[in-house]
Amino acid sequence: MFYVLIMAGGVGTRLWPLSRRDRPKQSLRLVGGRTMFEHAVDRLAPILQPEQIFVVTRTEHMKILATQAPELPPDNFIVEPEGRGTAPCIGLGAIHLHRQDPEAIMVVLTADHFIADTARFRQVLAAAAQVAEEGHLVTLGITPSSPSTGYGYIKQGESVGTVEGFSVFRAERFAEKPSPETALHMVESGEYSWNSGMFIWRVDRILEEFQRQMPEFYVQLAEVEATLGTSGYEPTLSRVWPQVARQTIDYGVMEGAENVVVIPVDIGWSDVGSWASLSELLPADEERNIIVGPHVGIDTRDTLVFGEERLIATIGLEGMVIVDTEDALLVCPRGREQEVRAIVRRLEEDRRTEWL
Amino acid sequence: MFYVLIMAGGVGTRLWPLSRRDRPKQSLRLVGGRTMFEHAVDRLAPILQPEQIFVVTRTEHMKILATQAPELPPDNFIVEPEGRGTAPCIGLGAIHLHRQDPEAIMVVLTADHFIADTARFRQVLAAAAQVAEEGHLVTLGITPSSPSTGYGYIKQGESVGTVEGFSVFRAERFAEKPSPETALHMVESGEYSWNSGMFIWRVDRILEEFQRQMPEFYVQLAEVEATLGTSGYEPTLSRVWPQVARQTIDYGVMEGAENVVVIPVDIGWSDVGSWASLSELLPADEERNIIVGPHVGIDTRDTLVFGEERLIATIGLEGMVIVDTEDALLVCPRGREQEVRAIVRRLEEDRRTEWL
Repeated sequence: MFYVLIMAGGVGTRLWPLSRRDRPKQSLRLVGGRTMFEHAVDRLAPILQPEQIFVVTRTEHMKILATQAPELPPDNFIVEPEGRGTAPCIGLGAIHLHRQDPEAIMVVLTADHFIADTARFRQVLAAAAQVAEEGHLVTLGITPSSPSTGYGYIKQGESVGTVEGFSVFRAERFAEKPSPETALHMVESGEYSWNSGMFIWRVDRILEEFQRQMPEFYVQLAEVEATLGTSGYEPTLSRVWPQVARQTIDYGVMEGAENVVVIPVDIGWSDVGSWASLSELLPADEERNIIVGPHVGIDTRDTLVFGEERLIATIGLEGMVIVDTEDALLVCPRGREQEVRAIVRRLEEDRRTEWL
Repeated sequence: MFYVLIMAGGVGTRLWPLSRRDRPKQSLRLVGGRTMFEHAVDRLAPILQPEQIFVVTRTEHMKILATQAPELPPDNFIVEPEGRGTAPCIGLGAIHLHRQDPEAIMVVLTADHFIADTARFRQVLAAAAQVAEEGHLVTLGITPSSPSTGYGYIKQGESVGTVEGFSVFRAERFAEKPSPETALHMVESGEYSWNSGMFIWRVDRILEEFQRQMPEFYVQLAEVEATLGTSGYEPTLSRVWPQVARQTIDYGVMEGAENVVVIPVDIGWSDVGSWASLSELLPADEERNIIVGPHVGIDTRDTLVFGEERLIATIGLEGMVIVDTEDALLVCPRGREQEVRAIVRRLEEDRRTEWL
C-alpha cells in the first residue's frame, strides 16, 4: 500500500511577520485561498484515501492542522515532541507506517510547498512508487527554472530507465545551496535538479538505511517502536526524543544510501520560502505591483503590498516589500527578504516573544 | 482686556493616516506627550485666565477639544457650522469677543502649531498687545530658520519703533508660498518673516476692516451678531453660514488693511504641517532615525518610524517615512510627504470614508 507522510513541523521563519510560532507557514493562506497544508492534502485526494495520509507535526500546531484537514483520522497526526531535523521526523513516521503495513510504500512530502501542476505531481508519484517497489530510494528532483541559490541540487548519474514516461537516474551527488556561479554552471549543464525534499521508498528500506547509517538513532527509534499502540508510547517518545541527535535526511541517509535514484520533473514547484519566492506565485498588475488587501498608491511600482484589513498607502515606492499583519509590520526593499530571519533572531534574543 | 481666539477648525490632512476627520491634528499627541490643542492652551496659562480663552471649532471636534481643556468655560467654545476659511472664522470669534468686551484686544492663535520658546511667545504677545492698543493690526512674523517653501512670507517695511525689546515694522507685503529660488532670495535679504497666522488687534479695528473690505460678509456677520445670547443665534448662524463666501484673513483683510505691522520673532515656531516638519521636532538617534513605538531595525537610517502599539520591522531603509495607525499605514520616501494630501483626495474621490 501507498502511504504519504506530510512533514508539517516547521514555522517558515522567513515569512515573518505573517508566520509565527502559533501560526506556522503551512497554516497560512498564501496562494489560492487555501492554506499551504490544505493544498498539500487536497492535491492527494484524487489518488489516496484519507487513511493513507499521515502528518508529523508539533504539539502546538496539531490542533490548527487537524481543523484544516478534518477528513484525516485523528490517529494519523503524529506528534513530534520537538523538532530534531528531517531524519528523526521521517524515522518517527516510518515506524508508524511500518506498524500499519510492513510493506508500505512511503511517500515523504512537505506541508508548506507549492505545486502548480498537481496532475503531473500525482503522475510522478505513481511512477516513483513503482520504482520504489524495487527497493530504490527515490527523490523527486525539480527541473530548475532558474539558477536559484536557495535550493540544494541533486546531480543525475547514469540512466536507470524510464517509468510511465519519466526518466529515472542514479542520484550521483547531493549538493548544498550553491554560490551563484556554481548554480549557473549546474543549471547550464542540464545534469542537476533541485532537491525538493520529496522522497518515495519502501518503509522497510528506509528503516534498513537508518539501521546501517544512523545506528544510534535506530536504537532510539526501536525503543519507541516497541511501545507503539501501548500507554507507554507517549512517555517513551517524550523521554527518548530530546536525546536524539539533530540530523537531516540528506546528510544522515541520502548521501550515503544505496540505490538512490532521482526522477527530475517539472511540476511548477516552489518552497515558498521567502517573500521573494511567494511574490513569484502571486499575480502582478501592470505596474508589477502585487497587492493583497486594501491599498491606495501613488507612483508605486514593482512592490509587494501584502496586507490584511488595514489600508496601506504608498507614495513613490519602487521594489519594496510591505507585509502588514494585525500586530506587526515589515518594510524592506526587494532583494533583502532573506534578512527577515535576522529580524526574528533579534526578537528571540530580546525575548520579545509576543511577536514571535 | 486681552482675549485669545484659538482657531481649531482644521483637520491637518497632511498628517494622515494619524489625522482624520474625527481625530484632527490639534487633538493628536505629536510632541511632548500633550495634544497640540493642550499645548496651545497650556502655553497661555501663565498670562491668561481660562475665561479669556475662546476656541472656534466644528461641531464634530467640539467634544474632543472640550475634554482636552476642561478648564475652559463651555460657552467659550464657539462652534462654526462649517469651515469657510480663516476670515469668517475670525469674524465669528470677533463678534463673540466684541459682545463680551467692546474694547477687547483680540489675539488670534492656532490650535495645531508648535512653539518651542513659550516664554518668549508670551513676551511678544504682551508687546504686540501694546501695539494693537494703538489701533494697529499686528501680525507675528517668524524669523525664518530656512528658505522654506511651505510658508507664506511677510515683507518688513519701515520701522515703527521698538516695544519691550521687539522691533515693529510696517507690513509691506504678504507673499504666498514661494518657489525655492524666491524663498532663498527672501530669506537672504533679511527683510522677510514667515507668516505664522497669529494676529493681535483691537476687536473693533478688525470689525471695522471687515466692514470696509468684506462688506457682504460684514452684513452676514451683523445678522448673526444681532442674535447673540438669544435662542435665535444657532438657527441664524446655521442659515447664514453656508452662504458666507470662503475667504482667508490674509487675502480678505490683511493685504488691504491699514496700519498693518509685523513683529518678527524667533520662538521656535513650526506649523507641524507635514510628516517632514514634524520630523524636525522629534529627537533622532545616532543613525538619524526617529522612532516612535515598538521597532526592530536592520541597516535602517534617516527614517521616520511613527507607530503605535504594533511592532514595525525595517530592513535596509534610508530616508523613508512609515506611519502606522490602528487601521491604516503610510509608506513613502522623505521628500514626498506633501503628497499625502493626494492620498486623502483619492480616498475622498473613491468614497473610502472609513479611512478619512
